[in-house]
Amino acid sequence: MLLNKVILNKHILALSAFVLMFMHVSAAAKQGPNLVVSYKELPEMRAALAKKGSYTSTYHAMKASIDQQMVLPIKVPVPQDGGGGYTHERHKKNYQLMYNAGLVYQLSQDQKYANYVRNMLLEYAELYPTIGLHPKRKVKSQNPGKLFWQSLNEAVWLVYTIQAYDLIYDALDVNTIKKIEGQLLKPVAIFLSDGQPSTFNKVHNHGTWATAGVGMAGYVMNEPEWVEKALYDLEKSGKGGFLRQLDELFSPQGYYNEGPYYQRYALMPFVTFAKAIENNEPERKIFEYRDGIVLKAITTTIELSYNSLFFPINDAIKSKGIDTIELVHGVTVAYGLTADTGLLDIAGQQKQIILTGDGLKVAQALDAGLATPYQYHSVAFGDGADGKQGALVVMRQQAQGEQALLFKPAGQGLGHGHFDKLTWQFYDNGAEIVSDYGAARFLNVEAKFGGRYLPENKTYAKQTVAHNTLVVDEQSHFNANTQVGNENHPELLFFETNEQGTVSSAKIDTAYDDVSLVRTVSLVKLPDSGKPLAFDIFSVESPTTHQYDLPVHYQGQLIDTNFKRGAFTKHLAALGEKNGYQHLWLTAKSTPREGLAQVTWLNDNGRFYTQTAIADGSTQALFTRIGANDPHFNLRNETAFIYRKKDTKKHVFVSVLEPHGQYNPAKEFTLSAQSSVSALYYQTQDRAAIVELGLNNGIRYLLIINTQDDKSTTVTYKNNDYQFDGRFTLIQLNNKQ
Amino acid sequence: MLLNKVILNKHILALSAFVLMFMHVSAAAKQGPNLVVSYKELPEMRAALAKKGSYTSTYHAMKASIDQQMVLPIKVPVPQDGGGGYTHERHKKNYQLMYNAGLVYQLSQDQKYANYVRNMLLEYAELYPTIGLHPKRKVKSQNPGKLFWQSLNEAVWLVYTIQAYDLIYDALDVNTIKKIEGQLLKPVAIFLSDGQPSTFNKVHNHGTWATAGVGMAGYVMNEPEWVEKALYDLEKSGKGGFLRQLDELFSPQGYYNEGPYYQRYALMPFVTFAKAIENNEPERKIFEYRDGIVLKAITTTIELSYNSLFFPINDAIKSKGIDTIELVHGVTVAYGLTADTGLLDIAGQQKQIILTGDGLKVAQALDAGLATPYQYHSVAFGDGADGKQGALVVMRQQAQGEQALLFKPAGQGLGHGHFDKLTWQFYDNGAEIVSDYGAARFLNVEAKFGGRYLPENKTYAKQTVAHNTLVVDEQSHFNANTQVGNENHPELLFFETNEQGTVSSAKIDTAYDDVSLVRTVSLVKLPDSGKPLAFDIFSVESPTTHQYDLPVHYQGQLIDTNFKRGAFTKHLAALGEKNGYQHLWLTAKSTPREGLAQVTWLNDNGRFYTQTAIADGSTQALFTRIGANDPHFNLRNETAFIYRKKDTKKHVFVSVLEPHGQYNPAKEFTLSAQSSVSALYYQTQDRAAIVELGLNNGIRYLLIINTQDDKSTTVTYKNNDYQFDGRFTLIQLNNKQ
Repeated sequence: MLLNKVILNKHILALSAFVLMFMHVSAAAKQGPNLVVSYKELPEMRAALAKKGSYTSTYHAMKASIDQQMVLPIKVPVPQDGGGGYTHERHKKNYQLMYNAGLVYQLSQDQKYANYVRNMLLEYAELYPTIGLHPKRKVKSQNPGKLFWQSLNEAVWLVYTIQAYDLIYDALDVNTIKKIEGQLLKPVAIFLSDGQPSTFNKVHNHGTWATAGVGMAGYVMNEPEWVEKALYDLEKSGKGGFLRQLDELFSPQGYYNEGPYYQRYALMPFVTFAKAIENNEPERKIFEYRDGIVLKAITTTIELSYNSLFFPINDAIKSKGIDTIELVHGVTVAYGLTADTGLLDIAGQQKQIILTGDGLKVAQALDAGLATPYQYHSVAFGDGADGKQGALVVMRQQAQGEQALLFKPAGQGLGHGHFDKLTWQFYDNGAEIVSDYGAARFLNVEAKFGGRYLPENKTYAKQTVAHNTLVVDEQSHFNANTQVGNENHPELLFFETNEQGTVSSAKIDTAYDDVSLVRTVSLVKLPDSGKPLAFDIFSVESPTTHQYDLPVHYQGQLIDTNFKRGAFTKHLAALGEKNGYQHLWLTAKSTPREGLAQVTWLNDNGRFYTQTAIADGSTQALFTRIGANDPHFNLRNETAFIYRKKDTKKHVFVSVLEPHGQYNPAKEFTLSAQSSVSALYYQTQDRAAIVELGLNNGIRYLLIINTQDDKSTTVTYKNNDYQFDGRFTLIQLNNKQ
Repeated sequence: MLLNKVILNKHILALSAFVLMFMHVSAAAKQGPNLVVSYKELPEMRAALAKKGSYTSTYHAMKASIDQQMVLPIKVPVPQDGGGGYTHERHKKNYQLMYNAGLVYQLSQDQKYANYVRNMLLEYAELYPTIGLHPKRKVKSQNPGKLFWQSLNEAVWLVYTIQAYDLIYDALDVNTIKKIEGQLLKPVAIFLSDGQPSTFNKVHNHGTWATAGVGMAGYVMNEPEWVEKALYDLEKSGKGGFLRQLDELFSPQGYYNEGPYYQRYALMPFVTFAKAIENNEPERKIFEYRDGIVLKAITTTIELSYNSLFFPINDAIKSKGIDTIELVHGVTVAYGLTADTGLLDIAGQQKQIILTGDGLKVAQALDAGLATPYQYHSVAFGDGADGKQGALVVMRQQAQGEQALLFKPAGQGLGHGHFDKLTWQFYDNGAEIVSDYGAARFLNVEAKFGGRYLPENKTYAKQTVAHNTLVVDEQSHFNANTQVGNENHPELLFFETNEQGTVSSAKIDTAYDDVSLVRTVSLVKLPDSGKPLAFDIFSVESPTTHQYDLPVHYQGQLIDTNFKRGAFTKHLAALGEKNGYQHLWLTAKSTPREGLAQVTWLNDNGRFYTQTAIADGSTQALFTRIGANDPHFNLRNETAFIYRKKDTKKHVFVSVLEPHGQYNPAKEFTLSAQSSVSALYYQTQDRAAIVELGLNNGIRYLLIINTQDDKSTTVTYKNNDYQFDGRFTLIQLNNKQ
């Protein structure tokens, strides 16, 4: 590859005819650029610019942006600052600039863009040999950088920069190539590979950036050994490296253990390097590897969103969604491979065009109106490399924008994981209804703990009580020990989806020493009326007595309860001392009478929600608002209610959540502000769990869940037999009275 | 008019030729329908339906809706329920149905729609003579209804029903006319006029509905005396009646004393009756009356909105905005009169087409793309019939969606008025930044105090501390006595707007016994940078010592203060005992040191706001959250900070509010999260108030306000002379350092 590029450089056309001819042979076999953008696509990409369209307008916008930058002096400062600081941000900006200018060079064929990248690379080539490890590196760090405080950023720098170099290579003379490769790119690649074996060989997202950068450097600088090392680890043992990362970092369904917020970030080097492998060595069939795991990782990232935002499990910034640049690249590559018009729906929502060859395909297809609605699914995404370490379960009604239910019997998800086994979230009408706090962080806001994860991320957001799952004795799952969490995971008992809805059940015995938790949730529509409901059956059992708390973090204004709440009107105190409880103001406390306990709230979109729970007369209802022990006002003051069962060995929390009605003060009408649920009963049998639901109109329903693995079940309830196939059935018992 | 309609009825074509000829003459002179819809417009309206467009699609939607209703039995129940109850809502629905069916009849010329209205009217004609005053009327009420618990609803019923009757008149036979008029419409009109002189003659919105209904009944049923009474009161004295209402209920600029939320409601009968007068007696030139007051009332309602929502002063539901049906009618009539294409911008946002002749004009113009952006203005809307009882001041930056500042030295606004003299609100980027609580009410939500104004509307929302204005000794203005409020009003000292921005000043000495309040606010953009700022200078003075509280109700998450806040972390208590203070949890309390006190918050749209105040070292900063003494969770838990100056006779609160930066966690960047204000000084001189502002970049500015009425002023500040014309100037003192 090096040889073929040499010929393109006008400075050395004086080479002998023989050499020239020899090179021509080589050039025909191998040509550049050829990483994510391939020389084969360039004629079409350039030709496209003659026509109007989103590709062309994106190109002109990027060119104008680069033009603005190019009038400014190039700045390659001596590394000094940590994350967020000037030199850190400058070096990040530089690699982005070089990459963009490289693209504009290939598209415009205007030498000045290549020169800009070359000049910046030469400044880096001057700087790099003079610097040692970064002054802001962590003490005893395994992965310090040189340009950046940690080598992760250095690997990202290489991923972009090697592509920029590849894009402008044909404009460089031999001496320049020698200097850039010899003083900069090769040393960086060696530093990130042989120089940091523990990071490079690690089956971890940081390792993926390193292998992607080094592997692509191998393609560009004709170092096939580097590609081998990138794919199979430094010893080429296969114990680490890119392929092992593809084997282990995703479940068979393409779910990434840390959840979608980190999945979309992890996606970038996988997609980038895979595309480069495909362009350089199609015989590796990288996109077919592990039954198409790269594509699955992309589509699963899409599936883990609602109303364009990622489900905010674990440490997640809640405004992050499918328009994130990593997923733009992912969708672009995926469309290039599959031409799946559903992906165009997502690309359209992303509103960003990538200037690669795949990006051209997306742009032209979008411009031609070929997009079709992306079809979301109800899926249990198995967790762990084998897909059997729990699961993340997504339930959806058919239409997008209708209800979705996220159920999380997933693994801990490493250091960013939350202690929220079996938690759930409920979405409707485009909004969060029963919600997860996400991460406690104001990203890059200096006044908020330097923009890093806030202390309250650990003291509140990660704790169990911050989620919609069971807390035993005010202790968090695994005692909030991440290592213990990583070593244990829930078990998915079953998952089934059909035209009536979706049911899933999971259990975990290791969240607490001697307590077993089993939760079964379902999202259905009632026959005939199509009324949507979410059922929740949470069974907890222990040989010893405990206090069991089940919180519901609701989004909206409390409208009513069918029991006296006992609000605290003069003074508020924190609900507890630790494990997140210290951050909750207790705003009301009471014990609903036996029967049904109903809590109704109204969300900002003007819809009412009622949770109807079976009340045993001895379970307390606590109402809370976040904000206690928060001297810096770091937390959002959200609300919850918690059902608390004290001094109990065994208990089942049974409830149904019901969206209803409409509040439209602008048009001055209010519809169905009250729940239509009038009865709720629960019964377990050997082979089934049965929920009977009664509505105000007199119609009664049975939700029967087959708790065994039988293909067909017959259940007797109130002297009637009910036979059905599969995991569950939903039956209307009578007609309207 | 009666005569001409008879001829159109096929049942009486057997009349003698002479009579027929005589009638023809009459018919040429006067024809129906002729209230808001005129027979003259009908040919064009019907013809329009042959073409596609928003008018035609609206027509078909309404026809389909009426068709659905017409297959159901007509229900005219015996009056029984109060507001919100079944019979109340049914009778409301009936008049709307009759009006819509009448329109569809005239447009379709399909007799069945007329028959539907006729049959319903006949049922009313059977019912009406049999009922007395409504059983749910208030005891000792001056204005009971018969079909409804209060005559206001009865008058609204007549306004719609008389139009429906007018629309179908040509399809009725003589006997039917006799019955409907004799047993229903005339008795209703007489009941609402001679039957309730105090309401009919009252210069009040309730009186407007009555005069509009009775006046239109007079046109339709050929009772010119009724029209006279409607215009000039029952004695035709001119002391009451529609014209007097136009004289007194709006200020000369078209501002309605109760504020925009009630203004849009009040608008409806004015617009409707005015249009009917114009069609029947154009010689009255009703739309020119009082310098075009009806049109001014319509455009002022538009001007009193931000991002499509009305400024929520006084008792206002905050989601009410320019798409309210009353303003749809208003804009439709206004466009019919003026053909002002700016009104089409509003009509487009309203997304509703009225099926009248004016509605056709709007629809066709919208379809043709004739709309131009509505130009909002900075205006001081004088309050009171003479426009001199204070003012409601709106300040806007040039571009819509940029900052707006509402300053309220307006009158009390009757029973729905709040005790918030000189309060202000600040808007930016489409959102409320410094906000007003609005009304404490969940309209029509039964569980929330029957959907009526909540008790907390009086105990919190109306109280002074719920607003952004000064509270003396924790007492509300006028001791929260509406009558005293109505008898006193602030005085607008001055208002001026120019290319630099807008400044206004007002005072009130009557809100408290011995305390004088003067506030000067301004919305400007800094020269060169265009940086927007809002200055606030609040002077308070008394011969005796008091405690002065100045709250800022901010929307967003607190990010930082440049002083220690002293947050309460373990327990919260209510800030006070009464006058709204009992509803505020005190979440933090401190005393910022002398210098600048800065509070920064982040709103949901990702923009930062910093209020920088001059701190004297002895003023406390209190932070509050709504929610204390709220057993039913009726209040929204919003936040505020309050500067409190104790034991003081005279004090000036000086501050500047600054939008800045951007928080974009989705794209992972944060810009300018910190205030750029580094200095703030205030000085008063005999003829001027001077604010000096310093920014972090070293640039200093002077805002000099001419506090006298001189046309030109020279001010000496720090040994420099500044001469300027008008009320204020904003000067940049130096260049960037």
